[in-house]
Amino acid sequence: MKKHNFYAGPSILSEYTIKNTADAVLNFAGTGLSLLEVSHRGKEFVAVNDEARALVKELLDVPETHEVIFLGGGASLQFYMIPFNLMKKKASYLDTGTWASNAIKEAKFVGEVDVVASSADKNYTYIPKNYTIAPDSEYFHITTNNTIYGTELHKIPEVNIPLVADMSSDIFSFPVDFSKYNAVYAGAQKNLAPAGVTIIIVRKDALGHVDRPLPTMLDYRTHIKKDSMFNTPPVLPIFSALQTLKWYKEQGGIKVLQKKNQEKAAVLYDEIDRNKLFRGTVAVEDRSLMNVCFVMNDEYKELEDKFADFAKAAGMIGIKGHRSVGGFRASLYNAMPIESVKALVQTMQEFEKKH
Amino acid sequence: MKKHNFYAGPSILSEYTIKNTADAVLNFAGTGLSLLEVSHRGKEFVAVNDEARALVKELLDVPETHEVIFLGGGASLQFYMIPFNLMKKKASYLDTGTWASNAIKEAKFVGEVDVVASSADKNYTYIPKNYTIAPDSEYFHITTNNTIYGTELHKIPEVNIPLVADMSSDIFSFPVDFSKYNAVYAGAQKNLAPAGVTIIIVRKDALGHVDRPLPTMLDYRTHIKKDSMFNTPPVLPIFSALQTLKWYKEQGGIKVLQKKNQEKAAVLYDEIDRNKLFRGTVAVEDRSLMNVCFVMNDEYKELEDKFADFAKAAGMIGIKGHRSVGGFRASLYNAMPIESVKALVQTMQEFEKKH
Repeated sequence: MKKHNFYAGPSILSEYTIKNTADAVLNFAGTGLSLLEVSHRGKEFVAVNDEARALVKELLDVPETHEVIFLGGGASLQFYMIPFNLMKKKASYLDTGTWASNAIKEAKFVGEVDVVASSADKNYTYIPKNYTIAPDSEYFHITTNNTIYGTELHKIPEVNIPLVADMSSDIFSFPVDFSKYNAVYAGAQKNLAPAGVTIIIVRKDALGHVDRPLPTMLDYRTHIKKDSMFNTPPVLPIFSALQTLKWYKEQGGIKVLQKKNQEKAAVLYDEIDRNKLFRGTVAVEDRSLMNVCFVMNDEYKELEDKFADFAKAAGMIGIKGHRSVGGFRASLYNAMPIESVKALVQTMQEFEKKH
Repeated sequence: MKKHNFYAGPSILSEYTIKNTADAVLNFAGTGLSLLEVSHRGKEFVAVNDEARALVKELLDVPETHEVIFLGGGASLQFYMIPFNLMKKKASYLDTGTWASNAIKEAKFVGEVDVVASSADKNYTYIPKNYTIAPDSEYFHITTNNTIYGTELHKIPEVNIPLVADMSSDIFSFPVDFSKYNAVYAGAQKNLAPAGVTIIIVRKDALGHVDRPLPTMLDYRTHIKKDSMFNTPPVLPIFSALQTLKWYKEQGGIKVLQKKNQEKAAVLYDEIDRNKLFRGTVAVEDRSLMNVCFVMNDEYKELEDKFADFAKAAGMIGIKGHRSVGGFRASLYNAMPIESVKALVQTMQEFEKKH
């Protein structure tokens, strides 16, 4: 039976990425060796690393003011590294969910944090829109997509200080105007690669302004200086990232992906709004194109487990909602084909007919 | 033609590890999904993570006083995290090479570092043995194997404070008495897994004694508390690590591997000592079982490039020495079969006959 992978992350990757990675694990770039056991300093992997960074720049239209690096440790480590490298005294943060809160928590180890607004009052079901940035704040940190709650910033806030964004769950799904950003970072395990690599796109002249001593590995300049190869990088995740990036280019680039994502999300949200059993959990205008959260309507609450089983039997994987929200969550990342979204919709319709 | 992989790291892995990883990239644990795209919270991967940690404990005989965690970022990040978590004011370090020096450099960001001895005076070609540890030092840091220079501590120093060891290039090649160690750490890309995961084995009651605030991701207790799953771990490298650990167990465990490593190294060192073209670069008593460094004898210096080409044509991969040493380096990690070592020896003998 065909499986439809709706996991929130690590999550679906293109067949192209999976097949090429499996091939390379057996024989990498004609070396006769496995991708798992080749030197990262060998010319074949250096070419992979260089091409992956170049394709990130090409696809996202990253200007020369910024540099792209790949690090280990996940976005969670960046919650600390971002303020550690960029914050002199004070920065502003928008609290739109668990990960935003975690970013705030780590920034407080570094300096003063101005939390401009929070949607915690309504379990993060909306994106706050009216707030004032502290006048002495150095950057404004946003989380563009909130994986757990299913909200997304469809309009990037217009502020008069540089932005920093955690785009872990929606990078490569919309064009980014990097002139507004001092840094963008993302764990790769949603829209790019298997778990184990984090992408950081940082404005070079925003670095070097803090007084604190920066240990070597926690200093972005270390990695920029060495073309993201200061120490052994996560070789296989970067190889897989390159495959995804090539596939994105072949698909027509970011704007094409964005349009497809809008279509996919519309198919599912339309069904949620139509189907009498279900309802969406977040403010309509803030609905994420990546993570679609929905629950059973109150009068059908007792059917929740039954729907979970029914959907599982139909090949739907990973649609259980996060424990903070409950219900269901279907993640529709770039690699998710519309056919899988339609299969989920059909499953919801069949279940509705039965009840 | 059969390739013989002598890379220093990332380096040779067992056929068992490579084959099982390739299979899992196509279909992981019968899920019908790729290992690249499954949730780390799914029961199949949680089982992998738990089994890998348990097998590390079993194979290395890790007592209950210690815990095993897998992190991203490489051993280079541990150069900072180790003192950050373990050093109140002062620690002692033995300088036996580039990586030891890097560990010392990062420790200086945290506190006072007592460098008890260094073999930098002779380009790190020996292990210093007579030194005194500062009386107020809290731990003594050693690098058990020096990948670049080809030296190894065959006798663990007897000191009256806890040890901390970087075992990146010889973990799982000899038994460890953990009662002597507050921490052992190792980048996995030599004797365990593909690049992207670092193993840390830390004494639990050695944590929590420092006054400095510890950001969440840089605090070992965060990861211990969450069974090494605080955030998304490097899924594939951990899966591959588990395959290697299973293969180690099947081989008979660490002592069997140690004996095989002694045999393999002896075959190559004997040839280096016999062959009139070559000589070893390090003190005989400190010769590494993992990384065998050798150069052409002075009178044959001009044959160096020719031997490099000759060996390459015979299928020998990655035997170029590190630029700090020059000449040649053959790494004989656990997964290296003795047949490959014999093939290299044969190549050296054939080259000798020609010249």
